[in-house]
Amino acid sequence: MKRVAIVGYGNIGKYVLEALEVAPDFEIAGVVRRSTSGEMPLELTPYKVVTDIKELGKVDVAVLATPTRSVEENAKKYLAMGINTVDSFDIHGGIWDLHESLGKVAKENGTVAIISAGWDPGSDSVVRTLMEAAAPKGLTWTNFGPGMSMGHSVVARSKKGVKNALSMTMPQGAGVHSRMVYVELEEGFTAQQVYDELKADDYFAHDELHVIPVASVDDCRDMGHGVLLERKGVSGKTQNQRFKFEMTINNPALTAQILVGVARATFKQAPGCYTMPEVPVIDLLPGDKEQLIRHLV
Amino acid sequence: MKRVAIVGYGNIGKYVLEALEVAPDFEIAGVVRRSTSGEMPLELTPYKVVTDIKELGKVDVAVLATPTRSVEENAKKYLAMGINTVDSFDIHGGIWDLHESLGKVAKENGTVAIISAGWDPGSDSVVRTLMEAAAPKGLTWTNFGPGMSMGHSVVARSKKGVKNALSMTMPQGAGVHSRMVYVELEEGFTAQQVYDELKADDYFAHDELHVIPVASVDDCRDMGHGVLLERKGVSGKTQNQRFKFEMTINNPALTAQILVGVARATFKQAPGCYTMPEVPVIDLLPGDKEQLIRHLV
Repeated sequence: MKRVAIVGYGNIGKYVLEALEVAPDFEIAGVVRRSTSGEMPLELTPYKVVTDIKELGKVDVAVLATPTRSVEENAKKYLAMGINTVDSFDIHGGIWDLHESLGKVAKENGTVAIISAGWDPGSDSVVRTLMEAAAPKGLTWTNFGPGMSMGHSVVARSKKGVKNALSMTMPQGAGVHSRMVYVELEEGFTAQQVYDELKADDYFAHDELHVIPVASVDDCRDMGHGVLLERKGVSGKTQNQRFKFEMTINNPALTAQILVGVARATFKQAPGCYTMPEVPVIDLLPGDKEQLIRHLV
Repeated sequence: MKRVAIVGYGNIGKYVLEALEVAPDFEIAGVVRRSTSGEMPLELTPYKVVTDIKELGKVDVAVLATPTRSVEENAKKYLAMGINTVDSFDIHGGIWDLHESLGKVAKENGTVAIISAGWDPGSDSVVRTLMEAAAPKGLTWTNFGPGMSMGHSVVARSKKGVKNALSMTMPQGAGVHSRMVYVELEEGFTAQQVYDELKADDYFAHDELHVIPVASVDDCRDMGHGVLLERKGVSGKTQNQRFKFEMTINNPALTAQILVGVARATFKQAPGCYTMPEVPVIDLLPGDKEQLIRHLV
């Protein structure tokens, strides 16, 4: 049994705990939170909750369920302590730099980091890579949603006149998206004012935008999400090869399950840093290789 | 540039040649055939065509485009000569034994074999494994077709009263298939007689079967095929996670492209034998890792 720590206990952390509780090959060492003074969620009662990972005894791997912006600092610290790390770092433009920076620390300390391992980046990245291998020339379209964008919702909530907001990503096809922003307005503000504010923000400037006033944002919130990946391309010299990958999923539950899979996979890689396409998919599963190959290949 | 030999030149071999001609990182050492005395296909004019791989000089990897039943013997011979091998061995029940047998020879000789690397088994196996990692509890259905089954067509052609036959695999959902067998009848034979013969054969006994007489089987033949993989399962403790992978493709063209990808991947694995879920998907692609990660993850 490998001993695993959950670092951070927001939405993703909760679902990581559930995925670990049903995994056959992990022992939960405990949960690391910024503070242990607040109210304790009932489901954490059986576990050690600490502010410093050192209080958990031996830890083999840390699942970083913290905001993306604190991934690098936390990962470096744990990797240097001899603890493998996994995260779902999701700023696509920053992945290579993180790869370089964690790779160096991991190699120096004989540890393994698997980064950007959620569903996108993450499992979708594996599918995109496989599709490109199947038809090297062509185009891939990633269509997200319909589903809640955490990042856009946070930005929308920060605008003047907005009490609460939910930004939904709606696929329009060919990788183009529109954004439906459901808002609770402060008194005296209009949807048009919020629309203008959002359109002036780089986060919203480039997509079709609709602002829709609602009585309660909370009543609209659902963590279902989805994706449709499509590729049309050429295998060898043969045109018109068509591939589609589609899913509709609970967003944090899938992210958490992937994180648990890659946490397991860290123990099968040489020291260093990896994204998911660099890891054999079979390493995400528990159990005997012969049985897995008989069952899945 | 790695030097590659194509072993066997049927349908798959032809398409492997095309895929290698457009690959940026392979030099075609030549083609190995059982005999070089027959008529030479025009497209082979620029290449060495031999009966013994030794006549091709240095060869780094051999793509086995021979019938499945000769894969093991050929692969063992080449692996022992220091040549990596790839194949699309497709008898699902025999994959693990082949894995063991080629793994031993490969390790003894410092070479690499990647086996069962077509689309099923092959790229579909990667998708099935990834889906199971995303939702470990649940069911996956593999629905093939509509498309021509080579194996069933051969069996149908061997029956009394059948001049020529094409067996199409038709998906009925949930992994259940029916078989539509298009036959040119010998004079004096009826579709019912052929139906009864086929139903008595283990190959056809278990599926819904339709025998349809046609004037020309050749006029019905098309190498398009497809698959729909579906999984419905549980991520952590969250039910009803839904995944679909669908493709419609030219069958030998896709098989050939996958074979070229895994031929490339052999140079990045430690000595031994691998199925596709055991190989990082990024290894199937040519080019610089940083660029691939920036583009695909």
